[in-house]
Amino acid sequence: MKIKYNFNNLMSDNIGEGSGVSEEEIDSLSGRCKEIDSNLKKMRKEGKIHFFDLPYQENVVKDIKDYAGTVADKFENLVILGIGGSALGGIALHKALNHPYYNILSKDKRKTPRIFFLDNIDPDTHSAIFDIIDVRTSCFTFISKSGSTAETNAQFLIFMGKLKEILGNELKDHIVFITDKEKGNFRKIADDEGIKSFIIPDGVGGRFSVLTPVGLLPAAVVGIDIEKLLEGAALMDKICEKQNIWENPAYMNAVLHYILDTKKGKNISVMMSYSDALFGIADWYRQLWAESLGKKYSTDGEIVHVGQTPVKALGVTDQHSQLQLYNEGPNDKIITLLGTEKFNSEIMLGSFYQNIEGISYLSGHSLNELLFAELTATETALTKNNRPNCSIILPEINELALGQIFFMLEVQTAFSGCLYNINPFDQPGVEMGKQFAYGLLGRKGFGDKKAEIENRKKKNEKYII
Amino acid sequence: MKIKYNFNNLMSDNIGEGSGVSEEEIDSLSGRCKEIDSNLKKMRKEGKIHFFDLPYQENVVKDIKDYAGTVADKFENLVILGIGGSALGGIALHKALNHPYYNILSKDKRKTPRIFFLDNIDPDTHSAIFDIIDVRTSCFTFISKSGSTAETNAQFLIFMGKLKEILGNELKDHIVFITDKEKGNFRKIADDEGIKSFIIPDGVGGRFSVLTPVGLLPAAVVGIDIEKLLEGAALMDKICEKQNIWENPAYMNAVLHYILDTKKGKNISVMMSYSDALFGIADWYRQLWAESLGKKYSTDGEIVHVGQTPVKALGVTDQHSQLQLYNEGPNDKIITLLGTEKFNSEIMLGSFYQNIEGISYLSGHSLNELLFAELTATETALTKNNRPNCSIILPEINELALGQIFFMLEVQTAFSGCLYNINPFDQPGVEMGKQFAYGLLGRKGFGDKKAEIENRKKKNEKYII
Repeated sequence: MKIKYNFNNLMSDNIGEGSGVSEEEIDSLSGRCKEIDSNLKKMRKEGKIHFFDLPYQENVVKDIKDYAGTVADKFENLVILGIGGSALGGIALHKALNHPYYNILSKDKRKTPRIFFLDNIDPDTHSAIFDIIDVRTSCFTFISKSGSTAETNAQFLIFMGKLKEILGNELKDHIVFITDKEKGNFRKIADDEGIKSFIIPDGVGGRFSVLTPVGLLPAAVVGIDIEKLLEGAALMDKICEKQNIWENPAYMNAVLHYILDTKKGKNISVMMSYSDALFGIADWYRQLWAESLGKKYSTDGEIVHVGQTPVKALGVTDQHSQLQLYNEGPNDKIITLLGTEKFNSEIMLGSFYQNIEGISYLSGHSLNELLFAELTATETALTKNNRPNCSIILPEINELALGQIFFMLEVQTAFSGCLYNINPFDQPGVEMGKQFAYGLLGRKGFGDKKAEIENRKKKNEKYII
Repeated sequence: MKIKYNFNNLMSDNIGEGSGVSEEEIDSLSGRCKEIDSNLKKMRKEGKIHFFDLPYQENVVKDIKDYAGTVADKFENLVILGIGGSALGGIALHKALNHPYYNILSKDKRKTPRIFFLDNIDPDTHSAIFDIIDVRTSCFTFISKSGSTAETNAQFLIFMGKLKEILGNELKDHIVFITDKEKGNFRKIADDEGIKSFIIPDGVGGRFSVLTPVGLLPAAVVGIDIEKLLEGAALMDKICEKQNIWENPAYMNAVLHYILDTKKGKNISVMMSYSDALFGIADWYRQLWAESLGKKYSTDGEIVHVGQTPVKALGVTDQHSQLQLYNEGPNDKIITLLGTEKFNSEIMLGSFYQNIEGISYLSGHSLNELLFAELTATETALTKNNRPNCSIILPEINELALGQIFFMLEVQTAFSGCLYNINPFDQPGVEMGKQFAYGLLGRKGFGDKKAEIENRKKKNEKYII
């Protein structure tokens, strides 16, 4: 079953010329889009854009499933240590497909290990995790492509301390690395000490890595059907083969976002999930869109400073928080409504207090109906207010649908990068901050960075309190 | 101990004239600010702005603490049913002050009941909650000022069904309402049936209600010192008495955001928490800022369409997701770095793999040092890139500090509303969506709304898949 993408309410027919896109505006980009399409296909053929190949990796799947089975048999907890792209895909998958209170469920209701993603370096969280897991029954997965991510290395030192203390030489059986096939600290340690590891394929950056072991291994351990996931991605790959914008949902969504950003002043891209389970997709998209497209230089070296700011929102909750702004504030957003046609449960609203009209109109409906009514109502109100909105609707929340949406958004992002004429696969803008942090920590070779911060601090600081 | 607010890096001295604010620009608003200050104080005196009075409610506190004690003694679970402002304050408090894995902790490590906020109407989440709580040992708190919030009413019908089935007549002892003192469905039911209830004071809207029973009751049940919280708010109230912008952090932050939005094109306000515990504050702020300031009409009835879009971000995590965009993308944001000088725990990084330089530079440092280094590094990089950023730093994460930050941001928001010349206390822009939803559910009097949606649906829909 295919996911649905509806862009009716991004068009000027529905929301006016000021904020909507006309068919002519889309067609005016068709020459450029053809070029981009050809170029992407050429690069794909030459093996230069690796995420395109990820739906097709039968061998890796078997290895992951085998190992995941062992982990599920042997351990009660799986702890994932990694940050950014090393966590967001796994979190999105787990949140989408498992029980909303998975880690609280009693063991007989769960079957697979509890799962914890530690994707920050908060000291209190790192202290707290040891209150709820027993290291002796836990497996620790360290994820970093380069093996030199400061945060993940710091976590590694913390957990090595604990593991050595409690497990001694057995600690090796409790660790797995997901990292580069040749380079980096984690690869060296894994190979030197014979610790289990999985490979993040060459050329796949963190934000495009959900369909590598980075996303697949945690998913497989907690019972997610990773083959169906890849099948969904392959299905979307087929759909996105079309060169014609009007037949290609990823290209069309890229073109519409591009026009709305660059011609209509919509510098914000909201993804609003009308499902608790799909909220993690919005968070995953947030990284994909921001880090891929937020760039200073064009591929020609010109200073361009482009990139929409992605925002995640949750329906219906944020109707009581953000919708006032979305409807009445500046018309500076595109809103993608993310939903599902079918939930696992249908919950009926009972017939109590029928004498109170403010309650009785709800009775006889299901919670599902209320949620759909609110989604439709929000869509209609936004459109009446000329606010650009589109929707991506899953037939139901399963692996096949998730594979499609991940892949569609990745293709859309790569295509968007080409429209903006920037490199969607690098992230040079985080380097400066890393170097300042190295300086502050006294890492060799970064002394000048420390000095620079100290000089800045000498200036008058503006405090009231 | 006071919280600290530093606005050095919002000033043109540090980030240039294009993106920074000059002292002259601030002073040019001083006449207007004096007027607003006088007006706010006058309205406060006349009892027209009620959140100002919330730090001073000794009587309510006693009632809340007494009842909270009973709940904590009698129940193993507290379930909060409410949406938007009825949930965000309580969530922020609980997340800030309790164990990061509170609901997973074994009972002996917890002492107070587990707490669940159901602030959405997702059917799968509502089905799942019954897998992990036993209704017989649970207390259910329904929060809605008007008593007619559709989502909370729907939840009420669902839970009444379960409670009647399992508890029969005893259900009354498991329910508490937080609602208006006279009006609405919940008030009527509470009074008719003698069910325990708390009052949301007149004139306090959801987003300003964290210091009413809405935030205080859940907090008190899970062991938070609500008197200290109010003490913190009162302390900030004193600080914000000053008329002079240069002596008033709430006014200054309002003025700076206003100038940066209206004169320098910063239509996005990011709050980036460098603490897992404080992330809920960013979410609470997101509602406060968006719903208060996102308005179509000025108080003079002019069409203005104002309001910054608030975005929540988490440091250091989002350095690997959003920072690329923040540093290199369009210069369209103000970033507030939210942090704490002290965590509860200090975690040392062990000395392993000292032969690997990419790891050894971390050894001997604490995780705390790494986090602070990254915060400082991000601040420095943003500033070097001329990106407006300020910081709010807590001496430590406790009730006294949280009371201050809630109150400061509320005063700042009220003051901002006056700068924009809009009403920060209403939310007319959500009405249309509510009516469409009523129409779809067949509520009496909204038939025309249903017809309108159906007519819209007849238009050609734009689908590719």
